[in-house]
Amino acid sequence: MTDRVPPSPRDEDFSAHRMGAFADAVLAIAITLLVIEIKRPEGEDLASPHALAEFLWHEKASFVAFVLAFFLLWSVWRRHHTLIDEVDRLDRATAASHAPLLLLAAFLPFPTAIFGHAPDNKLAACLFAATAAALFGCEAVMKEFAWRRAILKPGVDRSKIRMSAGASVSVTVVFAVTAGLVWVTPWIWFIWFFAPLAAYFGGKLSERIRPDVIDRAPERQAEQMAQTRT
Amino acid sequence: MTDRVPPSPRDEDFSAHRMGAFADAVLAIAITLLVIEIKRPEGEDLASPHALAEFLWHEKASFVAFVLAFFLLWSVWRRHHTLIDEVDRLDRATAASHAPLLLLAAFLPFPTAIFGHAPDNKLAACLFAATAAALFGCEAVMKEFAWRRAILKPGVDRSKIRMSAGASVSVTVVFAVTAGLVWVTPWIWFIWFFAPLAAYFGGKLSERIRPDVIDRAPERQAEQMAQTRT
Amino acid sequence: MTDRVPPSPRDEDFSAHRMGAFADAVLAIAITLLVIEIKRPEGEDLASPHALAEFLWHEKASFVAFVLAFFLLWSVWRRHHTLIDEVDRLDRATAASHAPLLLLAAFLPFPTAIFGHAPDNKLAACLFAATAAALFGCEAVMKEFAWRRAILKPGVDRSKIRMSAGASVSVTVVFAVTAGLVWVTPWIWFIWFFAPLAAYFGGKLSERIRPDVIDRAPERQAEQMAQTRT
Amino acid sequence: MTDRVPPSPRDEDFSAHRMGAFADAVLAIAITLLVIEIKRPEGEDLASPHALAEFLWHEKASFVAFVLAFFLLWSVWRRHHTLIDEVDRLDRATAASHAPLLLLAAFLPFPTAIFGHAPDNKLAACLFAATAAALFGCEAVMKEFAWRRAILKPGVDRSKIRMSAGASVSVTVVFAVTAGLVWVTPWIWFIWFFAPLAAYFGGKLSERIRPDVIDRAPERQAEQMAQTRT
Repeated sequence: MTDRVPPSPRDEDFSAHRMGAFADAVLAIAITLLVIEIKRPEGEDLASPHALAEFLWHEKASFVAFVLAFFLLWSVWRRHHTLIDEVDRLDRATAASHAPLLLLAAFLPFPTAIFGHAPDNKLAACLFAATAAALFGCEAVMKEFAWRRAILKPGVDRSKIRMSAGASVSVTVVFAVTAGLVWVTPWIWFIWFFAPLAAYFGGKLSERIRPDVIDRAPERQAEQMAQTRT
Repeated sequence: MTDRVPPSPRDEDFSAHRMGAFADAVLAIAITLLVIEIKRPEGEDLASPHALAEFLWHEKASFVAFVLAFFLLWSVWRRHHTLIDEVDRLDRATAASHAPLLLLAAFLPFPTAIFGHAPDNKLAACLFAATAAALFGCEAVMKEFAWRRAILKPGVDRSKIRMSAGASVSVTVVFAVTAGLVWVTPWIWFIWFFAPLAAYFGGKLSERIRPDVIDRAPERQAEQMAQTRT
Repeated sequence: MTDRVPPSPRDEDFSAHRMGAFADAVLAIAITLLVIEIKRPEGEDLASPHALAEFLWHEKASFVAFVLAFFLLWSVWRRHHTLIDEVDRLDRATAASHAPLLLLAAFLPFPTAIFGHAPDNKLAACLFAATAAALFGCEAVMKEFAWRRAILKPGVDRSKIRMSAGASVSVTVVFAVTAGLVWVTPWIWFIWFFAPLAAYFGGKLSERIRPDVIDRAPERQAEQMAQTRT
Repeated sequence: MTDRVPPSPRDEDFSAHRMGAFADAVLAIAITLLVIEIKRPEGEDLASPHALAEFLWHEKASFVAFVLAFFLLWSVWRRHHTLIDEVDRLDRATAASHAPLLLLAAFLPFPTAIFGHAPDNKLAACLFAATAAALFGCEAVMKEFAWRRAILKPGVDRSKIRMSAGASVSVTVVFAVTAGLVWVTPWIWFIWFFAPLAAYFGGKLSERIRPDVIDRAPERQAEQMAQTRT
């Protein structure tokens, strides 16, 4: 980046840095608002340690939902952080694809609250899984766009972004499938805690089944670099 | 920027970067707080998937209002981001014009909540449209100030900011007109989803009807640059 | 700053930039949370435009309190922004003085809610004024520390920070005095909207009555610069 | 940092800057959300200054809890800020150890609310102390990782991070011990206000009892630097 004149801003271009800052803010707020959804004890619940303990035990699903949603959003942030570290400028499509991603991240406290208050309600579990599936689906689409069109920093291995998109697809599949399975199997949501494993193996898998796409990528990158220079 | 000594801070000057960071934070928080306004199901609503489905269907206007307000604030952020990318230092007037803009952005969750709970109440719809109109009106004023007085980064095409102000004016007009129309026509709020089209054509239109203003701009810019250098 | 090797971090030193970012975040959140304190209409209030209009009129003090608290926090942010623009590194005392400032800023939504719901309750008005007075008092102390001990950026006029501290003192006095006057005079809170005038004249005034202090400042600054270099 | 080519991003590496920005955001939001937990006066409580005063006095524990939790989170931020000022790039373990730290910080408003509403309930006090102990324990672990594996900025004294970890351990011990003591002694929570003293002396103490560890550290650092250069 140091060896060329910085390109003057263009309509379709978007500094990756500030998009990262905005996504940081939305994700940090959504992650911190989750705690508001846990019901506070009142009146009788506070009368004795025993009553409070009973209240906390009764609300146990809220704590599970809090931790689960925290790690979902954390993983979105963590992967987004890595992506922005690798990208120099965003094109219009990658930038636009942030809108549904952040919309769903901001919406997540709602299904989390419902699931935390009624974990046995199948629609509540389905709603949570469906929101998570949509969230990770958007993430996969965003990375797909970034991989095809964003201008990467020099020295970044483009195939890593493709692998990361594969990881997002796997997690999407896990949540989409369990959104259906909740209707027939109880306790299926235990699987959600193993989503990181799906991300890991999904990334590996995508490396194998999409080798053909690699070839065209560097040329497109070079082409884009050339366009920005001029 | 690299070829001259950075100007020492002045009273009337304001680094654009941190104004961007503050606006980011306020908009990100407002956008994420919107989810709090959606009513949570309680007691009976959670008893069965059917009861929950009925509750969600009953609250459908809240979801529409959430998505609508999300995209309004997102579009404000998106355009503000582009503006800050192009501006080097803010003058006092442009900085001050952020106060009403952010006040209205921070206020938006209130009319959104009312509209989401009572979409058929004409005053609720009017209040939402009026707040949005005021918000975009402030945006137009801010860009007008930025276009006249802010110090742009080198290589930025000043006419783009004027066009962007034209887009804001168009969206303002759409919301101001519908704030009146809600009193005579139901379902008029469907138009709000097409505000981006108004922004697009409004920008194009402003290019035609204000060509005279272009001429004086570059001289003023050069003059300002000269002032900062000294 | 460009003509010397960057000093290695020291215990007592604190990069001004990130303190600014944290203060930005706290102030932005406090300013955006204010809207939560406005009561939402429910049930009957939403039945007709007329009922809603009556509700909004009944809550009018909440809107006044919202706008008032918004501009208080905005003015704190605006002046803090200017200060951080001028400071290179914070000493330990200036950094520590941020804690009560941000504590009071984060607390402001509470007296704002009470004042908004019961503007005629003298204790409510007194609490609001007292919180504001404490907030601006902390601001004055922070600037006093910054003026004495923080390492300024080269080319910054140190006397400007002193003047800014004078402005904070004036606003503090206005709120402290009205915190007492609310007990004897109704509607005294109208004065709060003119606090910016107090800031303006207070700054001017402090220039006159504290000329003696100017002399010792530059030497201390030079001394500090020398310490950092070694 | 200026005398070497910036290393290209690696999988295990993480720019410290943005982790700082995200932690800033989460901590700033958690610190500002605390005020929401203080109960608002309603109806009768607002009828007269006397009724309001009684209400405020009745809720006094909420204010104490607010101030206490504010300073806990402030101290976490303050020490994290210092750490990030010293670190150049984070390794995978240090980055991952932020997740439980931020989870607990985001969770703190919950036990704060309970403790504020029922300070005499021993389980409430125990829950608050236990959450704080876990929070500072995570902080200690994170610093331990940073000390062993993160790549520091040139010129930073590595032993300072070890001392800082010692301070965190001491505060953890204070909260863990009082989490037990609340069951046998009332008013024990006064000790929590003296946690900063524990941090101070704990840091000093750790310098003495862990001198052996110092020796291996610089070599590991050098080794890491060498790895990044290549």
